[in-house]
Amino acid sequence: MTASLFARTLASEAMLDIFSDRAIVAAMLAFEAALAEAEADEGIVPSDAAAAIVAATGAEVDVDALVVAARSAGSIAIPLVKTLTAAVAARDPKAAAFVHWGGTSQDVVDTAMVLVTGRALDLVARDLDRLVDALVELARAHAATPILARTLLQPAQVVSFGFKVGAWVAPLVRARQRIARARDAALKLQLGGAVGTLGALGAKGEAVARRVAERLGIRAADPWHVQRDDWVALGCEVAILCGSLAKIGADIALLAQGEVGEVAEPAGEGRGGSSAMPQKRNPVAALAAIAAGVRAPQHAAALLAAMRQAHERGLGDWQAELAEWPSLFLEAHGALVALADATSGLEVDTVRMRANVARQHGTVFAEAAAALIAPAVGKQKASSVVGALAGRAARGEGELDALVRTDPAFAAVGADAIAAAFDVDAAARRAGEVAIARLDRLLAAPTTSGDSR
Amino acid sequence: MTASLFARTLASEAMLDIFSDRAIVAAMLAFEAALAEAEADEGIVPSDAAAAIVAATGAEVDVDALVVAARSAGSIAIPLVKTLTAAVAARDPKAAAFVHWGGTSQDVVDTAMVLVTGRALDLVARDLDRLVDALVELARAHAATPILARTLLQPAQVVSFGFKVGAWVAPLVRARQRIARARDAALKLQLGGAVGTLGALGAKGEAVARRVAERLGIRAADPWHVQRDDWVALGCEVAILCGSLAKIGADIALLAQGEVGEVAEPAGEGRGGSSAMPQKRNPVAALAAIAAGVRAPQHAAALLAAMRQAHERGLGDWQAELAEWPSLFLEAHGALVALADATSGLEVDTVRMRANVARQHGTVFAEAAAALIAPAVGKQKASSVVGALAGRAARGEGELDALVRTDPAFAAVGADAIAAAFDVDAAARRAGEVAIARLDRLLAAPTTSGDSR
Amino acid sequence: MTASLFARTLASEAMLDIFSDRAIVAAMLAFEAALAEAEADEGIVPSDAAAAIVAATGAEVDVDALVVAARSAGSIAIPLVKTLTAAVAARDPKAAAFVHWGGTSQDVVDTAMVLVTGRALDLVARDLDRLVDALVELARAHAATPILARTLLQPAQVVSFGFKVGAWVAPLVRARQRIARARDAALKLQLGGAVGTLGALGAKGEAVARRVAERLGIRAADPWHVQRDDWVALGCEVAILCGSLAKIGADIALLAQGEVGEVAEPAGEGRGGSSAMPQKRNPVAALAAIAAGVRAPQHAAALLAAMRQAHERGLGDWQAELAEWPSLFLEAHGALVALADATSGLEVDTVRMRANVARQHGTVFAEAAAALIAPAVGKQKASSVVGALAGRAARGEGELDALVRTDPAFAAVGADAIAAAFDVDAAARRAGEVAIARLDRLLAAPTTSGDSR
Amino acid sequence: MTASLFARTLASEAMLDIFSDRAIVAAMLAFEAALAEAEADEGIVPSDAAAAIVAATGAEVDVDALVVAARSAGSIAIPLVKTLTAAVAARDPKAAAFVHWGGTSQDVVDTAMVLVTGRALDLVARDLDRLVDALVELARAHAATPILARTLLQPAQVVSFGFKVGAWVAPLVRARQRIARARDAALKLQLGGAVGTLGALGAKGEAVARRVAERLGIRAADPWHVQRDDWVALGCEVAILCGSLAKIGADIALLAQGEVGEVAEPAGEGRGGSSAMPQKRNPVAALAAIAAGVRAPQHAAALLAAMRQAHERGLGDWQAELAEWPSLFLEAHGALVALADATSGLEVDTVRMRANVARQHGTVFAEAAAALIAPAVGKQKASSVVGALAGRAARGEGELDALVRTDPAFAAVGADAIAAAFDVDAAARRAGEVAIARLDRLLAAPTTSGDSR
Repeated sequence: MTASLFARTLASEAMLDIFSDRAIVAAMLAFEAALAEAEADEGIVPSDAAAAIVAATGAEVDVDALVVAARSAGSIAIPLVKTLTAAVAARDPKAAAFVHWGGTSQDVVDTAMVLVTGRALDLVARDLDRLVDALVELARAHAATPILARTLLQPAQVVSFGFKVGAWVAPLVRARQRIARARDAALKLQLGGAVGTLGALGAKGEAVARRVAERLGIRAADPWHVQRDDWVALGCEVAILCGSLAKIGADIALLAQGEVGEVAEPAGEGRGGSSAMPQKRNPVAALAAIAAGVRAPQHAAALLAAMRQAHERGLGDWQAELAEWPSLFLEAHGALVALADATSGLEVDTVRMRANVARQHGTVFAEAAAALIAPAVGKQKASSVVGALAGRAARGEGELDALVRTDPAFAAVGADAIAAAFDVDAAARRAGEVAIARLDRLLAAPTTSGDSR
Repeated sequence: MTASLFARTLASEAMLDIFSDRAIVAAMLAFEAALAEAEADEGIVPSDAAAAIVAATGAEVDVDALVVAARSAGSIAIPLVKTLTAAVAARDPKAAAFVHWGGTSQDVVDTAMVLVTGRALDLVARDLDRLVDALVELARAHAATPILARTLLQPAQVVSFGFKVGAWVAPLVRARQRIARARDAALKLQLGGAVGTLGALGAKGEAVARRVAERLGIRAADPWHVQRDDWVALGCEVAILCGSLAKIGADIALLAQGEVGEVAEPAGEGRGGSSAMPQKRNPVAALAAIAAGVRAPQHAAALLAAMRQAHERGLGDWQAELAEWPSLFLEAHGALVALADATSGLEVDTVRMRANVARQHGTVFAEAAAALIAPAVGKQKASSVVGALAGRAARGEGELDALVRTDPAFAAVGADAIAAAFDVDAAARRAGEVAIARLDRLLAAPTTSGDSR
Repeated sequence: MTASLFARTLASEAMLDIFSDRAIVAAMLAFEAALAEAEADEGIVPSDAAAAIVAATGAEVDVDALVVAARSAGSIAIPLVKTLTAAVAARDPKAAAFVHWGGTSQDVVDTAMVLVTGRALDLVARDLDRLVDALVELARAHAATPILARTLLQPAQVVSFGFKVGAWVAPLVRARQRIARARDAALKLQLGGAVGTLGALGAKGEAVARRVAERLGIRAADPWHVQRDDWVALGCEVAILCGSLAKIGADIALLAQGEVGEVAEPAGEGRGGSSAMPQKRNPVAALAAIAAGVRAPQHAAALLAAMRQAHERGLGDWQAELAEWPSLFLEAHGALVALADATSGLEVDTVRMRANVARQHGTVFAEAAAALIAPAVGKQKASSVVGALAGRAARGEGELDALVRTDPAFAAVGADAIAAAFDVDAAARRAGEVAIARLDRLLAAPTTSGDSR
Repeated sequence: MTASLFARTLASEAMLDIFSDRAIVAAMLAFEAALAEAEADEGIVPSDAAAAIVAATGAEVDVDALVVAARSAGSIAIPLVKTLTAAVAARDPKAAAFVHWGGTSQDVVDTAMVLVTGRALDLVARDLDRLVDALVELARAHAATPILARTLLQPAQVVSFGFKVGAWVAPLVRARQRIARARDAALKLQLGGAVGTLGALGAKGEAVARRVAERLGIRAADPWHVQRDDWVALGCEVAILCGSLAKIGADIALLAQGEVGEVAEPAGEGRGGSSAMPQKRNPVAALAAIAAGVRAPQHAAALLAAMRQAHERGLGDWQAELAEWPSLFLEAHGALVALADATSGLEVDTVRMRANVARQHGTVFAEAAAALIAPAVGKQKASSVVGALAGRAARGEGELDALVRTDPAFAAVGADAIAAAFDVDAAARRAGEVAIARLDRLLAAPTTSGDSR
């Protein structure tokens, strides 16, 4: 079942399947089949032996028994190869000698993980696209919808909701690119034999490796059994994606607070309720994304910490890496699916957004107001004058624009200029124009330089 | 199955069972039964309703369906309570109103985790005792067996193997004490109702809590739903245990290297083989312990990072904690069992230990030799004289004691003193005496001051 | 300066001083002085040599030169001992032979870290007391002040601000107790000589250790050079404290949001401003606490990861631990001081708290309302009836209590009962009573069972 | 001094300088100068005001005072801008109004960190080149030098030392490429103004940004103040490098063990000594690399955990990231320099390497021996026959090749074939050929596909 109860509620069924026992064992057997066939192609293994091996990889395997045996053996590959050998022997006793020929435990395990990880990345890519699309649509629809910008969790200025959503999109588009590149580098065959030289295959090692890789649809490469850099780099990219998703989740949760009320995750039967409080509608997609943001850094750190793999095969570190690897994908995809679902049906309360701006009594235009007199009185003086007026506005003594209008420091400033500085819609519109321009550039760009100006 | 394939091979079946879906759901239902009964005792819930609830907690639950529902609901408790309510309603429609009365999702989930964690700690304690016993026996048996001490992975001096093993014991005995104390603090009822006030139970909240706790065999305490300090402190103690186990595992692996050859994990059918190399006997218990040492720090960090739980119930952080919690126990117990098994049958090659000392040409007595002339010539001078001689010994120009005997700087030192300084058995015996004294004090002490001199 | 620029802004000057170069080197010299004196007491070192050594420990040390030398030497103790030996030799050439007699690098470094850490813990204890006092006062003052409880960042029910603050106090009081206990266990002498046997001191090793410990005011104990459990347990406790502080900081930040506006950190010249926005008042104490909560889990994990110290002295792990250790104290104390300052002057807007409750249209009493009819109609039915009414209230169709009064399902419920269920002040009062009872029990308790009911 | 005492001993002076207070403040002032000039170019700021600002950025700054002020202000940029404004005002009162025009605290801080990080990466690149060169030379020189391969810390087969060293090189070459790419993505201007819209600069925002970036020699890009993905990705790459360095360090330390004795770090005055043991020569470069491998995963995790930055500027998370950032570079460069120095003078004991092979009694050729009879008897049978013989060889009953020659199972195998299977030099030569081919391909490749077959 791939993960413990509460971890499963934060994951998708699809990703749980991808890293299921069944799927990993099947990938290990696929490796053994491809190895036998490649070796047959190179004349190392008789063709009928290879055929018998391929046939035997289709048999059922008792995974629980493998796990028990693996605890003594130190690797699940050992009992699996034994089981496969027995199955081959039952068909063709002479073929049994050629099972796992020239390979070692790590070859089959690492390559199997590469195969399932490829499928995991397909899922991630699919739902990342879905999330990007939903957010881009949202950003365009609300390009000019006024909303408070908040810095350090305090009201700051007025932007547009589309500006806010557009900022969520950028790291996702970059993640798409970075993950694709990390995938290319990481999804490569591991085939090194006992110590990485492919010694048992003699001069044909490289040719066999190329054929195995081709059959499995992955890149042939030098063995990386104790050189995990490309693999860990891929894991880090998934963790970075979790960080960007957690930021979106946290923003949604903050916007969905009762006191803010600017967005709500879509309602639905059984969605976001409380076992005690009938009125609750909890932001459960935000929940999944935030949880991923708490967990993923640690799983990435585990991969990094496991890189100190001794000599020609690690003792403990490699196994720790294997044990931690699926978590990153489970939590990333759980968060992705949750956010893609929630944002495509996000309820946006534009009235409330505007009302929240209005409740600031104009103080969020303080910088703009200060700019009106800064050239004349200096920026610090301007800032302190406006800061004092903003304090009065915050205490309910009036709207900041009204206070500004009657303040002697603003005597020389025209009414139109003041009105412009305090124009909510204009501020939102300007932010929206900036956002759309950035978004267009981002989506047009083939590479990370997409955010270049 | 509680964990993904490779994580399972590093865990024990017993601990996987304790954190299985079935066990956690059963603990949740045990909470609901105890709550109903406690409320019946206090006259809040009719007795027959409580009886119907208790009866219904025995029914089968479709956990996979709960997990799917939990993804929308935000908590697995919500569909479970719904399922339970339906089961109660089928027996006694009026009783259904009293299911989960006054409780909230977090009450049932946290308390269920407390219940299963209590069992997990029982397992840990049992095998920690077993490991301590095995090591104490080993330490006593080899109290005076000479072995190289190594610092910074370099030969340093001569101690005894019992001294080395005794040093492994101390943190385990302290862990036993610290975990017991952390357990007392952490294994407490969570019962706070919707926001921690137990408001729905009115004045009877505390009485109900005391009764629920008593029925479940845990401590009644104030709600700790967003105050996870005692809980996380328990998790940290388990991670610290993993650190101490990893150190033992790493030491065993280093001693078992072919070039050192001083210990070997017990042989056995299917134990520690290689899928490629027939001669291999890999230290698989060390493997499990080292893997725990790589992983546990990250799981502890996840618990610590999840402590920032907002207001009266966390969003995402709590759920992240729940998802990470079982891993610590799985990896700790996997390592414990592996080491307890391996050390109780550890093969100790005392001849090799002595031979490895001998191959140092006496250089590991350099400090003792320097001490013979330091009072006369000063410590730095003594150190540099002996250092130069040790360099010659290392280059094969003779044994250090022979070189010392003929060096003018040692002219005034008696032959007996030199012989004593280079006496391998005496060095081992002294280390053994120190070790046994420390061990006796440690095992006699009721508290951590056991290591006080 | 102990830390890089931005880390320093999150730390206190006092704690930076405690872990300064000067302070650590002074502690190392204090160890060497105590060692010499203890050995003189035991007749191992001539009294005048000990006196010369003690005198020389007062001299200035060029720490930058030590650091450079330490990079080659592998330990800063080596050049320090060399420098000290030269200084002693300049006073009394014969005394120089007795510098660092029987000790090793790790003895002086670990014990020095114990000494400065003791001072660090004094600071932590002092400001933890200060924070607890400030919060207890706040909790008592606002025991019955109504405020929204929020779960999953959604309005949940009504409690009191004192209830909320009281919940912050509990983990701090427990931290005080747990840290004190961890301190007792961890602040112990490290004195083991080259490999932990104290071999160079012969039979007098233990006696010397007791005397050194006594002179330094710490506990004598068996060497723990490669058994870091008690030390790391102390580090974890400090990280747990950071977690509890981060929770307080995050709650304050959430309460201080412009849209919530229930508390504000104290104003002050230069406090919480913005370089761009004149109106800003940022919650800078919350900032420090949240930052500590992000960083501390990682520093704790580093300590845990460094526990795999090989044989009789670690290579790299020990040094990693030393490098990470001060950060935990810097961030914990920075957060503590910031929160103690901020909470003692916290601005509490009780009007806003009440207004935020009022803006929920009574929906936060949905559980209480449902309880009025649950016995009659069943809990799920009651929940769905009230949930529907709450939805209408949330959409502005009226206050929930008004809707309830006219709903047929409530026909049999008396007006008084309904009024009581929706009584804001009564809810706050009840929460306050619970809070004060818990607080009194907590503060009265001598041990962690303080939270037992 | 940028880091605490023990962290400094693991870092290089050059990198400590790069992240020194002085250097960071200078970079902040360089940003302010470039901003003013860019705004002058765009006609936003009068040219003479810009000149006055640029002139004032050359003045001395009291950094300690900034740090104290930053604790209240929440950002060091605020007091720095104030100080700069005062300095400008002293020169040209009217110019003071234009200091920091349109910028916000995060703009100056983030861009300053980008500037110093660029220099940090230059240092890393330089010493990474140096390390790669040293290792390539070592690999080529020892392409055919026999050495044991070890898996799970057990003797496995025979390879060449050049093969081993070549495997160290590959991740470093890939790191060079990955870091270069991550650098391109991450080293970009942050200029967004108060909330990321550059609103205060009106229509000229983008033009100003381009000019500032050009003046500072970095890439212009959209603001990334709360979108830290590219930045964290760079940090992760540095952590991955640390992992690869730690693996090299650990291998060196294992090879340098007294019982293995195959390599030694270069000797030198004051290098790798012990304060207690005159004979010690500790592998201090390995120490630094291993320490980096313990610490870096946690610093990367801190960056990842800090990504959940709320709304338009984080509270606490951003500041945590800033505080952790320099550590990664300090530890990476400390390890790089140490390894580059150590490997360029590494002492290689080829006699010992061969002797260690010889001491295995031919058991490390067990796989090769089994392959001789596997086609005839099946692989499992072959493996068990040879495994039994290897056990006898290990127990001292003879060399494995001799035992094989007399075993009936090998009756049909020719003497030449057996001799070839046990040929140490041939095994080393084959491994060396593989290694050199891989190395040539790797160094020739312009991209990560360099490891493709």
